[in-house]
Amino acid sequence: MKDLNFFFNPSSIAVIGASDIVGSVGYEIMKNLIEDFPGKLYPINIKQKLIFGQPSFKSILDVPHKVEMAVIAISAPYVADTLEECGKKGVKGVVIVSGGFSEIGEKERETRLLEVSNKYGIRIIGPNCIGIYDNFSGVNTIFLSKDKISYPQKGNISFLSQSGAFAGLILDWTSKERIGISKVVSYGNKIDVNEADLIEYIYGDKNTKVICLYIEGIRRGRKFMESAKKVSKKIPILALKSGKTKSGAKAASSHTGSLAGEDIIYDSAFKQSHIIRANNFEELFDMAKALEKQVYPKSDGIAILTNAGGLGVMTADALEMNGLRLANLNESTVKKLKEQFPERVIVSNPIDLVGDADKYRYEVGLRALLEDEDVGLIIVILLLQVPTLSLDSADTILNIKKNCEKPILILGTGGEKITPCLRKLEEGGLAVYPSPERAARAAYALVTHAVVRGDIHRESKENIELCKI
Amino acid sequence: MKDLNFFFNPSSIAVIGASDIVGSVGYEIMKNLIEDFPGKLYPINIKQKLIFGQPSFKSILDVPHKVEMAVIAISAPYVADTLEECGKKGVKGVVIVSGGFSEIGEKERETRLLEVSNKYGIRIIGPNCIGIYDNFSGVNTIFLSKDKISYPQKGNISFLSQSGAFAGLILDWTSKERIGISKVVSYGNKIDVNEADLIEYIYGDKNTKVICLYIEGIRRGRKFMESAKKVSKKIPILALKSGKTKSGAKAASSHTGSLAGEDIIYDSAFKQSHIIRANNFEELFDMAKALEKQVYPKSDGIAILTNAGGLGVMTADALEMNGLRLANLNESTVKKLKEQFPERVIVSNPIDLVGDADKYRYEVGLRALLEDEDVGLIIVILLLQVPTLSLDSADTILNIKKNCEKPILILGTGGEKITPCLRKLEEGGLAVYPSPERAARAAYALVTHAVVRGDIHRESKENIELCKI
Repeated sequence: MKDLNFFFNPSSIAVIGASDIVGSVGYEIMKNLIEDFPGKLYPINIKQKLIFGQPSFKSILDVPHKVEMAVIAISAPYVADTLEECGKKGVKGVVIVSGGFSEIGEKERETRLLEVSNKYGIRIIGPNCIGIYDNFSGVNTIFLSKDKISYPQKGNISFLSQSGAFAGLILDWTSKERIGISKVVSYGNKIDVNEADLIEYIYGDKNTKVICLYIEGIRRGRKFMESAKKVSKKIPILALKSGKTKSGAKAASSHTGSLAGEDIIYDSAFKQSHIIRANNFEELFDMAKALEKQVYPKSDGIAILTNAGGLGVMTADALEMNGLRLANLNESTVKKLKEQFPERVIVSNPIDLVGDADKYRYEVGLRALLEDEDVGLIIVILLLQVPTLSLDSADTILNIKKNCEKPILILGTGGEKITPCLRKLEEGGLAVYPSPERAARAAYALVTHAVVRGDIHRESKENIELCKI
Repeated sequence: MKDLNFFFNPSSIAVIGASDIVGSVGYEIMKNLIEDFPGKLYPINIKQKLIFGQPSFKSILDVPHKVEMAVIAISAPYVADTLEECGKKGVKGVVIVSGGFSEIGEKERETRLLEVSNKYGIRIIGPNCIGIYDNFSGVNTIFLSKDKISYPQKGNISFLSQSGAFAGLILDWTSKERIGISKVVSYGNKIDVNEADLIEYIYGDKNTKVICLYIEGIRRGRKFMESAKKVSKKIPILALKSGKTKSGAKAASSHTGSLAGEDIIYDSAFKQSHIIRANNFEELFDMAKALEKQVYPKSDGIAILTNAGGLGVMTADALEMNGLRLANLNESTVKKLKEQFPERVIVSNPIDLVGDADKYRYEVGLRALLEDEDVGLIIVILLLQVPTLSLDSADTILNIKKNCEKPILILGTGGEKITPCLRKLEEGGLAVYPSPERAARAAYALVTHAVVRGDIHRESKENIELCKI
């Protein structure tokens, strides 16, 4: 039963443990759903209070309509009986946010939940999780108050997280970083629905173009790898796996009881499943926002176009350190550019347009690189602080980007005065990075996924490894 | 002649090539100096125009007062004669921003400048540089318009950069990152004053507590190492050296004509001179802002205090990957904490205060860690998005920090709603980091410099290497 759509697009939701006490979990869930969810909403509260001015039901069995999905936010000892009622009611999926199960040694309680789940064919996300955030359907079981977190803009990245707190943090952080999010799921103790199920479900989701994972430990490795291998050919999968070191593994075991395992085993499993590994969470989303654009290189040669020599040097370093290759510019490209540029421009790779470069020089450079066969991807470095570049340089680049089949990554950073130009580039559909290393890592992800897709056939040793199934 | 104070604290400055043409180099320099520099200012312009409403002089020789420092921003062929006039006038130091020297093959012009310099004992910064920014004295020869860049707040980090564009970028970037800056110097072709001179001068500067370098290549290696070795025992020196890889070295050679050299040689030279190496510019300043506080660990054991387990795991990983060690908490610390905390709190290292931790739990944890001998440094992770933490948690932590002799680093990140709390912590004197890896790298810098100072005696193999002279 791969279809988990009733979790993400239910026609109706019951909130069991709905509350009118400001700050309580049941209050925050109700508040978020009232604001964002367009379907039917049924508050369930044993005291049958008015909740947000709406009468509540004592039990889900009292609801006079069909209920497709339920959120359970009540004390752990009562969860199983409540789940039984959900089963009787014909609910298809339940998100159990309540904690107090195996994470505190209460394994028996989880066994009981699984029995009920099997009896009624009801699917469970959780327990001990913060649940689901779907930016398109409005389903939101995250019980963090909107006074404390902001939610991100709509986008095509979905994030699956073993840690609930980290999932909440990422929602808030992506809001500030202007990274577009489709779904965030924290699946907690994953007694039923796990990473593999979610990856397979998302495979068919029209709103997701990249999957990001935060993993501390995986229990059913074979199933996970099979699902990932199948999905990653179409949708890139990125993973941040913590517990890499001895100290980290020990901490992971205290945190989610995960057996972090030998990192080298995870590393190899990820490679075999074409999962691209991130070293930290900034990198996870740096890579995701490049992949989200779905423009992939056809050659592994990378060109750098810059008006700041130092940043060009750093970017060249960072690319090589990621195992990437600077493109060998075609002789005709070099000739053409030398004819059009003043002598002080360095026509090599990086192309250093030098400090007085204006938007026309960028235009000439970009058009030539787009025509050069060996160039699969272009990193455009913009030192926007110089007098010769202004807000309309963004238009020039966006205009070229419109009909372009090669990925272009922007490296631009600085203070508030240049922010409008970077925003414009982002809003125009380009991924913008604040440092050479972060742009280079995004380039790595694009090249790696292009190899997996078969768009690039790399011959070097390391990269054959990438293609290996 | 080590004293370069006349560059940074002159009583008077002549701007040779001062201009009233908006956007020109001579205009921007005049504008910045009029706004910020409290000393005497003499515009020199061959046409003797009114500049910013002030009459200019045809030659520096016409100025009827003493001139201590001059900025030269005129066409390269005329620079040497102008320098000669500066010599005759008794000017002590000249910043030559003009380009058109060895970087375009015109070596002869530089030889001529050096002859004049020797004849009059006049010191030169440049040519082909953007010069000096001193946040305390108001000297500012950076010709980037204030319409395009913002300047950082006052602080105790000085940045010396081989690349001019990168120096300008860092001024703008640190303004946004709220990193306090003392001086920024771009020294261009460094025909006279070089890194070693600047490092030695800064040694005696009361406004500098950390030196950051951006290097593409060093010419006089021995002198550089001697100066660095002497200074780094008192003031930490951090370096970002680009041109590490083949691609980067090739790009560096086109950019500043630097022979980037074998990276391993630089690496070893840095180690021998106790220079802490950064892998990228974010890291350079992440480390600098921790070192700027001048509170160093006395033990290399690091404790993590968190309310987000996942971030604790990632931080433990990042510390170990930097060769750092988690502290072994004393039995009495563990006992004391277990007595005071609810059972669900994990009293280990990381200490996971769990999701419902409030400021009191942090207070208890912090106080215990400050008393534990093996703990030299504490990383406090704040997931501020939870309902139990609010703005006043910052006061609790700052209050403890007041009388504390151990460095505390804060890891906190997210969206705009939690920013006020992070700002408060920063303004209270704590270094705040947005990711586990960046906080861990700052911890690495603190431990490494404490070893150099002799505050920590590390016995592990790698770290003996750090102590090696």
